[in-house]
Amino acid sequence: MAKSDKGSKKSQAKAAVVTSAKAAGTKAAGKKAGGAKSFVLDPEGPPEVRPAELLRLPDGPITLAQLSTERLPGVPKDKADALARMEAMAPRLAELQERLFAASTAGDRRRVLLVLQGMDTAGKDGVIKHAMGLLDPAGVELSSFKRPTAEELEHDFLWRIERKVPAPGIIGVFNRSHYEDVLIARVHDLVPREVWTKRYAAINAFERRLARSGVTIVKCFLHVSFEVQAERLAARLDDPTKFWKFNPADVDERAYWEAYQEAYRVALTRCSTTAAPWYVIPSDHKWYRNWAVAALLLETLEKLDPQYPAATYDVDEQKARLAAQLAP
Amino acid sequence: MAKSDKGSKKSQAKAAVVTSAKAAGTKAAGKKAGGAKSFVLDPEGPPEVRPAELLRLPDGPITLAQLSTERLPGVPKDKADALARMEAMAPRLAELQERLFAASTAGDRRRVLLVLQGMDTAGKDGVIKHAMGLLDPAGVELSSFKRPTAEELEHDFLWRIERKVPAPGIIGVFNRSHYEDVLIARVHDLVPREVWTKRYAAINAFERRLARSGVTIVKCFLHVSFEVQAERLAARLDDPTKFWKFNPADVDERAYWEAYQEAYRVALTRCSTTAAPWYVIPSDHKWYRNWAVAALLLETLEKLDPQYPAATYDVDEQKARLAAQLAP
Repeated sequence: MAKSDKGSKKSQAKAAVVTSAKAAGTKAAGKKAGGAKSFVLDPEGPPEVRPAELLRLPDGPITLAQLSTERLPGVPKDKADALARMEAMAPRLAELQERLFAASTAGDRRRVLLVLQGMDTAGKDGVIKHAMGLLDPAGVELSSFKRPTAEELEHDFLWRIERKVPAPGIIGVFNRSHYEDVLIARVHDLVPREVWTKRYAAINAFERRLARSGVTIVKCFLHVSFEVQAERLAARLDDPTKFWKFNPADVDERAYWEAYQEAYRVALTRCSTTAAPWYVIPSDHKWYRNWAVAALLLETLEKLDPQYPAATYDVDEQKARLAAQLAP
Repeated sequence: MAKSDKGSKKSQAKAAVVTSAKAAGTKAAGKKAGGAKSFVLDPEGPPEVRPAELLRLPDGPITLAQLSTERLPGVPKDKADALARMEAMAPRLAELQERLFAASTAGDRRRVLLVLQGMDTAGKDGVIKHAMGLLDPAGVELSSFKRPTAEELEHDFLWRIERKVPAPGIIGVFNRSHYEDVLIARVHDLVPREVWTKRYAAINAFERRLARSGVTIVKCFLHVSFEVQAERLAARLDDPTKFWKFNPADVDERAYWEAYQEAYRVALTRCSTTAAPWYVIPSDHKWYRNWAVAALLLETLEKLDPQYPAATYDVDEQKARLAAQLAP
């Protein structure tokens, strides 16, 4: 990115993530005054606006309709640019991931948990393929939470979640999560109102406990519009290699769109905490969405800044032992 | 690969995977006569010698010393060529992986289990990072078998293995496996001789059962030389970012090198079956090793040739329902 891009970045930044300036509060107002440049992820690396700051759920009352589903202006410019930026991130992600794991072998308890939520077709699977695909599979633990099994239903809703919390050094990825228990469960009355209303506080307490035990929680709401969801479902019906991804029940669910948006609004606003903030990822453009989640993960790892541990043995002594084995 | 390469391929093919022509049996002899060109993985794709044929454990009595740890002549030429070939494989692997998963949603029970075994530093982790890293993480299930836990030791040695067998549509990857129970367990007398001697037959019966239930088992022995292992351990001592990978016990284990080679020889020859053959991957060159495992996986998936399932609903009817939702 050359310096000449700055001007256009600044002007694009005026149309910020929040469509309504009122809802954005002081943060977005400050951004407008200061311009979009702000920070870089890595002083040595390519310039990036800090995604955590740009994508974090705004303070104060919101409706989902106020949050743009379109790409965030400024970074990246277009699909080719987003792909190039992701490729440039790959070696930095790989090194930080290795450092996170290496540190855990010496007692560092830190780990990352990426939570992916979104309406059907928002792109949870796409993010896993394209953003998580940049990582070493050995250090990633992916958990998909589907309809609970009979055994899972006999336990508290967080029981199956707790079992999948990543170990130190690991990047856990949740494809859906405990939030389904205040989303589909609320929309379809799967449990009584007095049960799901208590879950928000239970989730906050759970996530606070995880954070204290070393888990950095990054919750991404992949935000897609009603129209783009229809386009993506229709695309599945136009391509025989995608028929298997389509389920007529997905069309039925669209009748509950507003109820889901409301359930998401409440979940996002009640459960965006300092310990575990929600990020809103505009997801009408797949390339923007994938870049944004990868960039958020990179920024998270750079903030953690895990370190390779020192040797716990005498390096020269071990070199001598090895050399002795090769001597005739 | 241009036609001009053929000459050098043929001449290189004379130094085949098996150093001793005697040990190679008729297969290697036939290859010599026919030259290295033989087959392609995909008539539309870049020409590749079929890796399964080249890498399969030779019939008849062998010693590991007879099996080359150096790269297989012919394909690929060098590191840059191997990387380019792997990049070219990536989209084919991705499509076949998706087809395998898609087919499973319509009742196809097939899945793949890649078993990685090898001495320390042979590159199990490297294969996972560089070859399995080509796949969509959503369809890969990685299991690392370390020292058994107290709970695992209370069960039969195959108990913990059975629990990690991949579901239909999934590519399972075992980083170490049930073979440790006839390798380290035999070398270090972790169980009495009368226990481990019965395990070979148990393993063959277990793998036959898996194969019958739709699991294609691809067992890769990453074969590295005593000298290259020393070089790789020494490299960890030369680089502070690799200190954490080194364990003084790894040097101790080298005193048992011959016992391990013998344990591997017996495991490979007694447990290379039609249902679950062993492949020997020359692993002194990391780039060759990574290419070979990726190519074996690609060939395996191409042979399975999973198909996208047909729609289980009326496509036009669903299109109309979607359109109706968008009408004013």
